[in-house]
Amino acid sequence: MIDKDMIGSANQAAEADLRAEYDALGETLSRRGVDIEAIKGKVADYGVAVPSWGVGTGGTRFARFPGQGEPAGIFDKLDDCGVIHQLTGATPRVSLHIPWDDADPADLNAKARELGLGFDAMNSNTFQDQEGQALSYKYGSLSHTDKAVREQAVEHNLYCVELGKKIGSTALTVWIGDGSNFPGQSHFTRQFERYLDSAKAIYAGLPDDWRLLTEHKIFEPAFYSTVVQDWGTNYMIAKELGDKAQCLVDLGHHAPTVNIEMIVARLIQFGKLGGFHFNDSKYGDDDLDTASIDPYRLFLVFNELVDAGDTPGFDPAHMLDQSHNVTDPIESLMNSAMEVQRAYAQALIVDRAALSGYQDGNDALMASETLKAAFRTDVTPILQMARLEKGCAIDPIAAYRKAGYRAKVAAERPESGAGGGGIV
Amino acid sequence: MIDKDMIGSANQAAEADLRAEYDALGETLSRRGVDIEAIKGKVADYGVAVPSWGVGTGGTRFARFPGQGEPAGIFDKLDDCGVIHQLTGATPRVSLHIPWDDADPADLNAKARELGLGFDAMNSNTFQDQEGQALSYKYGSLSHTDKAVREQAVEHNLYCVELGKKIGSTALTVWIGDGSNFPGQSHFTRQFERYLDSAKAIYAGLPDDWRLLTEHKIFEPAFYSTVVQDWGTNYMIAKELGDKAQCLVDLGHHAPTVNIEMIVARLIQFGKLGGFHFNDSKYGDDDLDTASIDPYRLFLVFNELVDAGDTPGFDPAHMLDQSHNVTDPIESLMNSAMEVQRAYAQALIVDRAALSGYQDGNDALMASETLKAAFRTDVTPILQMARLEKGCAIDPIAAYRKAGYRAKVAAERPESGAGGGGIV
Amino acid sequence: MIDKDMIGSANQAAEADLRAEYDALGETLSRRGVDIEAIKGKVADYGVAVPSWGVGTGGTRFARFPGQGEPAGIFDKLDDCGVIHQLTGATPRVSLHIPWDDADPADLNAKARELGLGFDAMNSNTFQDQEGQALSYKYGSLSHTDKAVREQAVEHNLYCVELGKKIGSTALTVWIGDGSNFPGQSHFTRQFERYLDSAKAIYAGLPDDWRLLTEHKIFEPAFYSTVVQDWGTNYMIAKELGDKAQCLVDLGHHAPTVNIEMIVARLIQFGKLGGFHFNDSKYGDDDLDTASIDPYRLFLVFNELVDAGDTPGFDPAHMLDQSHNVTDPIESLMNSAMEVQRAYAQALIVDRAALSGYQDGNDALMASETLKAAFRTDVTPILQMARLEKGCAIDPIAAYRKAGYRAKVAAERPESGAGGGGIV
Amino acid sequence: MIDKDMIGSANQAAEADLRAEYDALGETLSRRGVDIEAIKGKVADYGVAVPSWGVGTGGTRFARFPGQGEPAGIFDKLDDCGVIHQLTGATPRVSLHIPWDDADPADLNAKARELGLGFDAMNSNTFQDQEGQALSYKYGSLSHTDKAVREQAVEHNLYCVELGKKIGSTALTVWIGDGSNFPGQSHFTRQFERYLDSAKAIYAGLPDDWRLLTEHKIFEPAFYSTVVQDWGTNYMIAKELGDKAQCLVDLGHHAPTVNIEMIVARLIQFGKLGGFHFNDSKYGDDDLDTASIDPYRLFLVFNELVDAGDTPGFDPAHMLDQSHNVTDPIESLMNSAMEVQRAYAQALIVDRAALSGYQDGNDALMASETLKAAFRTDVTPILQMARLEKGCAIDPIAAYRKAGYRAKVAAERPESGAGGGGIV
Repeated sequence: MIDKDMIGSANQAAEADLRAEYDALGETLSRRGVDIEAIKGKVADYGVAVPSWGVGTGGTRFARFPGQGEPAGIFDKLDDCGVIHQLTGATPRVSLHIPWDDADPADLNAKARELGLGFDAMNSNTFQDQEGQALSYKYGSLSHTDKAVREQAVEHNLYCVELGKKIGSTALTVWIGDGSNFPGQSHFTRQFERYLDSAKAIYAGLPDDWRLLTEHKIFEPAFYSTVVQDWGTNYMIAKELGDKAQCLVDLGHHAPTVNIEMIVARLIQFGKLGGFHFNDSKYGDDDLDTASIDPYRLFLVFNELVDAGDTPGFDPAHMLDQSHNVTDPIESLMNSAMEVQRAYAQALIVDRAALSGYQDGNDALMASETLKAAFRTDVTPILQMARLEKGCAIDPIAAYRKAGYRAKVAAERPESGAGGGGIV
Repeated sequence: MIDKDMIGSANQAAEADLRAEYDALGETLSRRGVDIEAIKGKVADYGVAVPSWGVGTGGTRFARFPGQGEPAGIFDKLDDCGVIHQLTGATPRVSLHIPWDDADPADLNAKARELGLGFDAMNSNTFQDQEGQALSYKYGSLSHTDKAVREQAVEHNLYCVELGKKIGSTALTVWIGDGSNFPGQSHFTRQFERYLDSAKAIYAGLPDDWRLLTEHKIFEPAFYSTVVQDWGTNYMIAKELGDKAQCLVDLGHHAPTVNIEMIVARLIQFGKLGGFHFNDSKYGDDDLDTASIDPYRLFLVFNELVDAGDTPGFDPAHMLDQSHNVTDPIESLMNSAMEVQRAYAQALIVDRAALSGYQDGNDALMASETLKAAFRTDVTPILQMARLEKGCAIDPIAAYRKAGYRAKVAAERPESGAGGGGIV
Repeated sequence: MIDKDMIGSANQAAEADLRAEYDALGETLSRRGVDIEAIKGKVADYGVAVPSWGVGTGGTRFARFPGQGEPAGIFDKLDDCGVIHQLTGATPRVSLHIPWDDADPADLNAKARELGLGFDAMNSNTFQDQEGQALSYKYGSLSHTDKAVREQAVEHNLYCVELGKKIGSTALTVWIGDGSNFPGQSHFTRQFERYLDSAKAIYAGLPDDWRLLTEHKIFEPAFYSTVVQDWGTNYMIAKELGDKAQCLVDLGHHAPTVNIEMIVARLIQFGKLGGFHFNDSKYGDDDLDTASIDPYRLFLVFNELVDAGDTPGFDPAHMLDQSHNVTDPIESLMNSAMEVQRAYAQALIVDRAALSGYQDGNDALMASETLKAAFRTDVTPILQMARLEKGCAIDPIAAYRKAGYRAKVAAERPESGAGGGGIV
Repeated sequence: MIDKDMIGSANQAAEADLRAEYDALGETLSRRGVDIEAIKGKVADYGVAVPSWGVGTGGTRFARFPGQGEPAGIFDKLDDCGVIHQLTGATPRVSLHIPWDDADPADLNAKARELGLGFDAMNSNTFQDQEGQALSYKYGSLSHTDKAVREQAVEHNLYCVELGKKIGSTALTVWIGDGSNFPGQSHFTRQFERYLDSAKAIYAGLPDDWRLLTEHKIFEPAFYSTVVQDWGTNYMIAKELGDKAQCLVDLGHHAPTVNIEMIVARLIQFGKLGGFHFNDSKYGDDDLDTASIDPYRLFLVFNELVDAGDTPGFDPAHMLDQSHNVTDPIESLMNSAMEVQRAYAQALIVDRAALSGYQDGNDALMASETLKAAFRTDVTPILQMARLEKGCAIDPIAAYRKAGYRAKVAAERPESGAGGGGIV
């Protein structure tokens, strides 16, 4: 963990300027009828989960260039996640990936308690073969033509649930790579029927207070077709399975030009939005840092979420899911968590009464300007003040760098190899 | 109509070569266990509907370059459709667009009888304002914020049904341009709720033996969001409305790279594939001639249709929907109808037992080759023989050109102006 | 024109708040080492040209829904452009489109002088047929297979130059619709050779102090291939023609996912960036309001422009080019001009020394954050103060609405029809 | 190698049917004025190079699922390439990738001679770090900000040339992963200048009879920008370097919807088409089997190549470049080589005189039909006859399976691990 005094003294040096900027912003917002304190309160309460695998350096199918001091196992990873939350106060939960993070639940709970962390959704893995695994997923997992392979994949998912129950998780996220690389390779309908059968078997093993979150993705690792290719198919899955099944939206999993915020609205409308994997992308599932490419798009997604805020039972899971190939993963995750907060804060200050009026009056320009006025607002002082008041760092990246955490763990942890592509 | 003797003598000149090629193909297919006569019979029975508006020259938002002898009204259009069917034997029905084709049903029926044609799905138009129309669709129609506009749009659709009942149609196709050009302009959920209300009102007026076919489209004429943007939303509509509501797939209405044949399979699986608008595209809704850009994609769609052939109650509507900007529309429609037949014939000769085996055995290469072997087969002689035996032209384009039909109608019909973009 | 007193009193009411926000922003920027006055000065000097056709309501190939009080001719259009510039102070020049805006140069000059406007690049039109035109552009213009058609198109361009010389223009923008709708329709190489020949003939008629700006576009109105399909071909044209030929970048003319700011950088590097058509898009050439869809992308383009600012002879033309289908065109153009100013101001406050250091040190996260820190800055007070000091409106949209300009011209101008798609 | 008698007896069993189909096709083609023997001769002379890495099982960034009997080193790989050529007669050369295939040139030459193979273009690798490498390519190679890294990358390329000279290669293919993942990470212009400097240093070391082939790619492994992102930048490189530098087109390296055959035509026109990496794709750089997704697109590329056939000095390199994730790589490469031959044969039978006439006369429909008539022709018998006459297999896949080659090498070769993504 980072030394608290160091954080404190860095904050102290920056506090006066922050207060000046916070006050100025408060006045500006007040003129627009927005109470900055209320926004700050909601931002302070907000949290986004961190993926355990995100603290390792990612890669591509061409190469992985390891970083210094990469975590060697789940307990190292939790340490890194602890630092992220300590400095930002924005990432109270960690999402585990099994079997990578498999460990004694008691040890996991103890470590998490020590770091002030909890556990978010469990993630199963049937897109890779593990050492000692009886049957291969080369040609599919939950939708494989061979019943034995499907059963093995179902078993693995149920195991994830069992482990999750012991560490306080209440959701299972299922993403699979099943699909095909050639027209004709798979019979679309029979393949999807097999998927549904397997998913039902997993669903049957789900505790009552759990959710099953299924992810759609247009392509990769399959390059002609994917079983759960889009939200349409994902919705059908959730519908077939039952009330505990919902759809998870990863921002990078759609066809080019698709309007993602509209998909979010549709899933909300039909009660099937289960959660998010936040990241950003320009071409495909690029898994870039959240809001690094198109920050307005992220804002528009949060605009839907805030708008739907009062829907009863509406509580989608929020998680980052990125591949950090050229940055320090801790820095990227801190920054991305703050970008998610930023979009949330901006969406909170949208003048919804005015917007509604413009929509009813077909005043497209003013409706657009109402959203953009909120988006343009530099809410950084709100985020910073929320952190200061929680004892976190006004400037987490600077504090992290100053603390020399990376050099310290680099000295302690073994070097990781170049092998293995980056996973997300 | 084209002179029958001219067709006959042209056929006579080509018949010997055709018989030689047909026999050679018959032998090749026989070696693969395929009975050429059975294929020919199915092709001969197959028909695809022609859109009345397709016989006029299309255009873009930049310009329309009129052709010679364009039809001046629905009866001219029916004449042109009659020629297409006379020469190809592949287009027994015409799909009308209201109000463009509004006329006395008795006159329509008489004209159609005279030409040996029937009527396919009715098409409503609430994406344009018509002279004398009380309220404008500038900001939407079935999903407009103003109830009066929505009611006007519903009324128009019900009128189309009334007219259709009198001319033997049994389906209403609804495509609307409703959407938004700016983030914020429309509230996604409230807009879709309004759409659903309007659609239900139309559905309530549908005769028992009719179908309501709704079309999705990702963009254009709205450029930020479209109410029925994809098959996911389209499926929800069909589900909300009832058994008589189904989804219509236009091949050019999807995001780039989307796997369309898979959407077709999903809609079949869930009982909601209502029909097609066939055309081809490279960029957006280009409305190019069917199979002119990616003939293998069309084959893959037909592969799904033939595969699903035995599903009870499975009977999707087949229609061309193209914009002919640089060709003679009659030639393009004849050629496109034959391309649809070609894809159908190729899909019929797929060795489905072998394919199924390769799929079950995860033999991706042979599965792919099984489809490609069928696609590679030049089935032209089958199509030609089917036409010859029906008294149609072996080579419809050549016969049409030789007959001088275009010059003849150009002399009789008034010149059309450049105004007005091309539709659909 | 808008009543000056009205503008003045509206400004007076808003001035105190503006000064407070301007001062607060000044302090924030000062802490970052940025002089707000210097930024304001550059913004005040900046201008973007308005397209004459932009003040009319646009449309799509499906329909055009006319607005109230649309300009009936070039002098009405200039009136509207005058209002835009009066209120924003950001659009000192108008770009004419011939033949739509053809008029006696003396009258054009007198009118422009009266309104305080000048003339920007001339735009030729060989993508439509005009009444009385001898030969049709249905199958192409500058690249047509028929020499006579090419000569007609060249003549028209030279006519635009002649007219432009008399009204103070120094550039000709050439965008053509030439291309093909079918594989095989055109021989790519011979077609491009014909284009180059025609372009050379136009270039030969260009005054020494003029520039020829050629535009590339991936598709529409041609849907299989376009002669000048991308910046690669556009660059070759500029290279073949000579120093006075440069490339014009329309933000909506690229394939999905293409990195436009990188193309801008490449053209700058090789001395061939001639100018811009600013707008925004999500799917194709949507011609939406600038920065309404992806404001960060616009900022990234301006980041390249400001970075290249010191390149000798670097002076690209800036022009809006949008289709206003659902808004009041005057409002959209005012807003878009301010969005362009905004991106410019944000790019000006990028800490380039820091950025350079992060780039050299491969500190990707801080490089990204350096850009985003500038982008996040709400520079609205700078833009407003620049307007206030020039006697323009602090809030141009509000002032325009209050002035009732649209209702006034609607009473005076004839109604426009629905015919004709919107052109951009 | 495969037993010749086995091939012979399999051929014997199929020969009669083949002769019947060949003769029937010969008659059909003769009616169209095409001499089947001439086509067969050209097909027989045609060869496409095989990438050494293609005989290993590929993977994605998520996983690699090893196949049986994968080659353990370059000599195993050459054995596999030998089988491919023995059975198809279509792949006379192998393209090496250094350092993966680094070996004593004498051994390479001896082995190749034994197998009847030659060596095609050399491929360098600066997109991965190799064990013992002094400096990392994590932040780039030829365009790295650090001169020492650039020099290391240049050295490696020169080493590839040296090795290539000793084994009869006459070309170096350079593909790099350099780019950026964040806006701002790299200065576009300075980065490209560094690239050009490095490329010039490599070019300076190129023998007079060699070519430098540079590859462009829109994204992956960099996800915001790539240094050589498209053919425009690639052309500039070739232009800056000199006559021995040309552009290599990989069919999967373009933005969605881009017209690739047109890029091929442009590069031919300006003397800079250096060669191809053949494969197929639906979404991104999917590296699927050639012609498995869009066979008509491959045909259109070959249509350009055959059309340009007589251009003096026109001799682009032809190579396969695929990732075989779910098939036996030997089968995929054999099949893909035959698909390339197929497209070539189809392009050869295009009636170019007729096509030219339709193009000049703007007869778009008949121009399109002229291409499609050639594409529709099932030229399989021509390919088979060419193989039969060369002593290769009429049906290479069947012969390969019957020969049990894979099981045999699986027994001899060590098992490969799951580690490491698939390359290219």
